[in-house]
Amino acid sequence: MGVPPDQDNIPLQRCPDLVIKSDTPKGRGVFATKDIPARTIIDICPVVVLGLEENKEHIEKTSLYHYTYNWPTIDVSGKPKTAQAVIFGLGSMFNHSTQEQNVGWIRDPSRLVIIYRALRDIAAGEELCISYGSHLTFEDADVAPATPPEDEIEQLRMIEPY
Amino acid sequence: MGVPPDQDNIPLQRCPDLVIKSDTPKGRGVFATKDIPARTIIDICPVVVLGLEENKEHIEKTSLYHYTYNWPTIDVSGKPKTAQAVIFGLGSMFNHSTQEQNVGWIRDPSRLVIIYRALRDIAAGEELCISYGSHLTFEDADVAPATPPEDEIEQLRMIEPY
Repeated sequence: MGVPPDQDNIPLQRCPDLVIKSDTPKGRGVFATKDIPARTIIDICPVVVLGLEENKEHIEKTSLYHYTYNWPTIDVSGKPKTAQAVIFGLGSMFNHSTQEQNVGWIRDPSRLVIIYRALRDIAAGEELCISYGSHLTFEDADVAPATPPEDEIEQLRMIEPY
Repeated sequence: MGVPPDQDNIPLQRCPDLVIKSDTPKGRGVFATKDIPARTIIDICPVVVLGLEENKEHIEKTSLYHYTYNWPTIDVSGKPKTAQAVIFGLGSMFNHSTQEQNVGWIRDPSRLVIIYRALRDIAAGEELCISYGSHLTFEDADVAPATPPEDEIEQLRMIEPY
């Protein structure tokens, strides 16, 4: 078929210089133990996409809803829909910060993974934060930024997969 | 308190020599790209423990139930109960094999992580499989083993945390 032999091998890199701290003001958080250069892959996380119905009927009513991500999908009638996905990796552990966001992410729907990269140089000791964008399920603790936090497109443009 | 300063820093090691393959007979699976020596840490996965009620009311009715793990907890009256936890890492991606199990795991309830280790030398190209033990939600494809697959204790004894 002309597909390179490793096309189906989805890498699972994780930056080795990360720890979780349990006792932060935001609860658990992911922190750098060494300086991490801009564009370093932080984590590649497999996802499971939830059914639209089961999500609405059940997942939205549980604590897990705070952990899910929007995920583009197509419903049974062929219409594009926004489903929810559970992220099996650090993507479920990063706290939110609009102001201090230092990790960007991009969905790879064909491979069912999300790739996380450092948006800038991250210093040892810093917390790794993403922008939850339009899926923020709590009040934003940061000062309101000039651009709306739901502008995920801008953020997604900042990284390239692999 | 006499606690070492790094006691709260929970490591997040992942073995770098892993990929996901999408097209296996079992669906997605995790495979070794290089030889992995026995006892190597494969992944350390943070978990989120679900409420007993929300699990029964909702999660058990969704596709996510196939991904959850038993998790020891204490209910509001102080009685030990088995809750369910969602595993944010490769623990949610490993396929089951009673016969070919080459990865063991141990819960660390105080740190809310599961640690996965190679139970034996794993050769490049091998699939990494765990035993789902008592949480098997489908019929076991392997020939019935001499010991019951739910004997998780034996498996847990095979690895030590960190």
